[in-house]
Amino acid sequence: MSEERLPTRSENFSEWYNQLVLRSELADYAPVRGCMVVRPYGWALWENITAALDSRFKATGHVNAAFPLLIPRSFLEREKDHVEGFSPQLAVVTIGGGEVLEEPLVVRPTSETIIGHMYAKWIKSYRDLPVLINLWNSVVRWELRTKLFLRTAEFYWQEGHTAHASEAEAVAETMQMLEIYADFAENEAAVPVVRGRKSDTEKFAGAVDSYSIEAMMADTRALQAGTSHNLGQNFARAFDIRYLDRNNQQQLCWTTSWGLSTRFIGAIIMVHGDDQGLILPPRLAPHQVLIVPIHKDEAERALVMEAVERMRRQLGGFRLRLDDREGLTPGFKFHDGEMRGVPLRLEIGPKDVAKGTVALARRDRPGKDGRTFVPQDGLDRAVADLLVQIQHDLFQRALTFRLQNTHQPEDYDAFRQVLESGWADVWWCGEADCEAVIKEDTKASSRVIPIDQPGGQGVCIRCGRPARERAIFSRSY
Amino acid sequence: MSEERLPTRSENFSEWYNQLVLRSELADYAPVRGCMVVRPYGWALWENITAALDSRFKATGHVNAAFPLLIPRSFLEREKDHVEGFSPQLAVVTIGGGEVLEEPLVVRPTSETIIGHMYAKWIKSYRDLPVLINLWNSVVRWELRTKLFLRTAEFYWQEGHTAHASEAEAVAETMQMLEIYADFAENEAAVPVVRGRKSDTEKFAGAVDSYSIEAMMADTRALQAGTSHNLGQNFARAFDIRYLDRNNQQQLCWTTSWGLSTRFIGAIIMVHGDDQGLILPPRLAPHQVLIVPIHKDEAERALVMEAVERMRRQLGGFRLRLDDREGLTPGFKFHDGEMRGVPLRLEIGPKDVAKGTVALARRDRPGKDGRTFVPQDGLDRAVADLLVQIQHDLFQRALTFRLQNTHQPEDYDAFRQVLESGWADVWWCGEADCEAVIKEDTKASSRVIPIDQPGGQGVCIRCGRPARERAIFSRSY
Repeated sequence: MSEERLPTRSENFSEWYNQLVLRSELADYAPVRGCMVVRPYGWALWENITAALDSRFKATGHVNAAFPLLIPRSFLEREKDHVEGFSPQLAVVTIGGGEVLEEPLVVRPTSETIIGHMYAKWIKSYRDLPVLINLWNSVVRWELRTKLFLRTAEFYWQEGHTAHASEAEAVAETMQMLEIYADFAENEAAVPVVRGRKSDTEKFAGAVDSYSIEAMMADTRALQAGTSHNLGQNFARAFDIRYLDRNNQQQLCWTTSWGLSTRFIGAIIMVHGDDQGLILPPRLAPHQVLIVPIHKDEAERALVMEAVERMRRQLGGFRLRLDDREGLTPGFKFHDGEMRGVPLRLEIGPKDVAKGTVALARRDRPGKDGRTFVPQDGLDRAVADLLVQIQHDLFQRALTFRLQNTHQPEDYDAFRQVLESGWADVWWCGEADCEAVIKEDTKASSRVIPIDQPGGQGVCIRCGRPARERAIFSRSY
Repeated sequence: MSEERLPTRSENFSEWYNQLVLRSELADYAPVRGCMVVRPYGWALWENITAALDSRFKATGHVNAAFPLLIPRSFLEREKDHVEGFSPQLAVVTIGGGEVLEEPLVVRPTSETIIGHMYAKWIKSYRDLPVLINLWNSVVRWELRTKLFLRTAEFYWQEGHTAHASEAEAVAETMQMLEIYADFAENEAAVPVVRGRKSDTEKFAGAVDSYSIEAMMADTRALQAGTSHNLGQNFARAFDIRYLDRNNQQQLCWTTSWGLSTRFIGAIIMVHGDDQGLILPPRLAPHQVLIVPIHKDEAERALVMEAVERMRRQLGGFRLRLDDREGLTPGFKFHDGEMRGVPLRLEIGPKDVAKGTVALARRDRPGKDGRTFVPQDGLDRAVADLLVQIQHDLFQRALTFRLQNTHQPEDYDAFRQVLESGWADVWWCGEADCEAVIKEDTKASSRVIPIDQPGGQGVCIRCGRPARERAIFSRSY
């Protein structure tokens, strides 16, 4: 880690982000255009995210499987909107085993098509439904402008794909998964989100309705942090996914898909981080407690390390990192732990050993305010309480920030003004032509039409047509 | 599941395998040549394999990360043997985002090259060593003749890649990982293995030495079930992976790589399975206990299901599957559970409820011999004991089979005879020309030069030259 300081967020938010990702060793640029290497620290964070999601998926009856990376190009052409949406972004394999392939294969940009093909083969009767499958994998979408975690040619994610006997079941599944994403975001990542429906312009290529959770980053731009799609019968029709119902009639299935990706790591960085580096939510942090022993000579070292060993046993239920690297000052180690966003730092020197105390410093409250001395007896309890408190405070701080930066402008001028540095929550007609004009005028788009609506109706903030729903507009990642 | 019976292993081992994989719903053929879909039941087995390996990797200081799927083709050309070995098997992306790429990208067949590139960037000093990284991903190798799990164009695996400051450390790492694979195979999968070194002909393209664990399938052919490679300084030289040593001198690193893949699922199937279907080792089985409630009418059903609920709570520490599907006979469910290889079946009907007992049937001992009645009180203990016993017996049975089918022929005629239906353990000169003749004569190859050697020396079984080591020859998958 270099000693040089990060650019501050107010100086240059984008550069703050880019350098922080590299210097905290979450990820690095790969030698292939637009691709990233997720380094061990970043992957440990992703593993904690996957565990938190996977347990929620399994608790709601989903199972994991694996489908091929390579998909015949013709498969994508079967669903009209789908091929239009993804064609410009495809990586295409034209040579295999030294020979030109008769039919080119695309590296999956998403798996609806190959899954549709297999579901058509597997599903025969209503007894086979629902099919509730999730995949953990990576997908490739050629991107011109890339940014680590937020937009890369290859990214890691999960994609859920389900098939149902009725529209009502498919809709319920779509909403259930949206709620699971929101629960994960708020209770594991401490990232408050707005749940809602996407506009026609913003929805998934091939979906009837797309839903997303949207989070506000510290620069007030929005980030779509997870999506859940009701695909209606579009893919069932394209791939002939049919079942025999209880009356022995052939019926088309109703399908859904839903995904959350390594993009979410970008949200965690940009929601919680400060000018010193990352701040990771305790429930997902690869290291929850950084232990820094402080000693000047060999005698002190022996004394302190004995106490550290005792503490490591006492704190066995937490994810610990002991920084006992030689030749580095405690100050350097503090700085390193701050850059990496470890929620709690435990400092222990000879005086602490003598007094039977340690210093605990909260990452989310730099300076004296967040640093307390606690007795070594009962340390595990103190650490547990502090981690819960930090998790809670991170969420509250992010929520307060979002509420402070979400406005309800009453006219189009005020709306344009708000979109310079915040979210606008407005009555909107929902029409694509209107959205296009807003985008042209403000560089902002409709992020989400919230599930929670006030009811009643108003007039569209731009065109004045009647509006039955309020929408969130914002610039976005 | 179809009611039709499997071909027996003695009728047609290959067809028994193919049909079993499909009918137990472990995997299916994908619509892309040579690729497979790993279905939920197969993926659950793989997840248990990954968990067992991953905990061993982490306990020995390794961390996970993710590297890009796409690799510039020029990277493969930097290590002479590596490119020769992998060139014929590559899938090549020539189009990205609608445009022909200036430099084609290969879909990774293995990641030594791109990892070498990044390690050269990350490693500066001896303080940065060792680097101990593992990846869980899939790789693509174009194959002409494919077979589900055993040889597919895309397969799932882990690949470990480490860099060290000395040759001794790299060798120790190579041997440590070989031992971890052997420990996993024997203690988790109940698959006995021989640990050993590969011949020059059989080693990894680019390695100094390759080691593998080899297992005997039920048709006596060998399967290479995991490999660990000492790469010497070959890749460090090709990618310029250097570090400053304690004396401030530039040194080349020493690297290793090691992998175990979904191929191992093929080993589990072919080592333990019988003519009724799979037999899964309890420690890895997705379902350890299949519960089949037996009832004729609604009153019996209520009675039995109440007991079943009690038992599910009692057996909460095990992976259970309750087969309460309607409209299927208990016989069909027994047959289904046998096909899927669930180690233990628990049957409970109204009489059992009245007597306070259940029937437990061992999958590895079909018929009356393996079926016992046990009291519902203390059932968890009985189940735990039986699962341990089954795990132990599966290993012993496989080991006995291997020992019975491993021979020490004394001359070349006997050697050829042995290789018709078994392993030959013989003195061998180790020369590539000699191995080529043996392969031509017998269709068998050297599988492994065991770590455990008797010492002394003999004469080569074929050429009569002096031989310092014994080797295992066999036909193989």
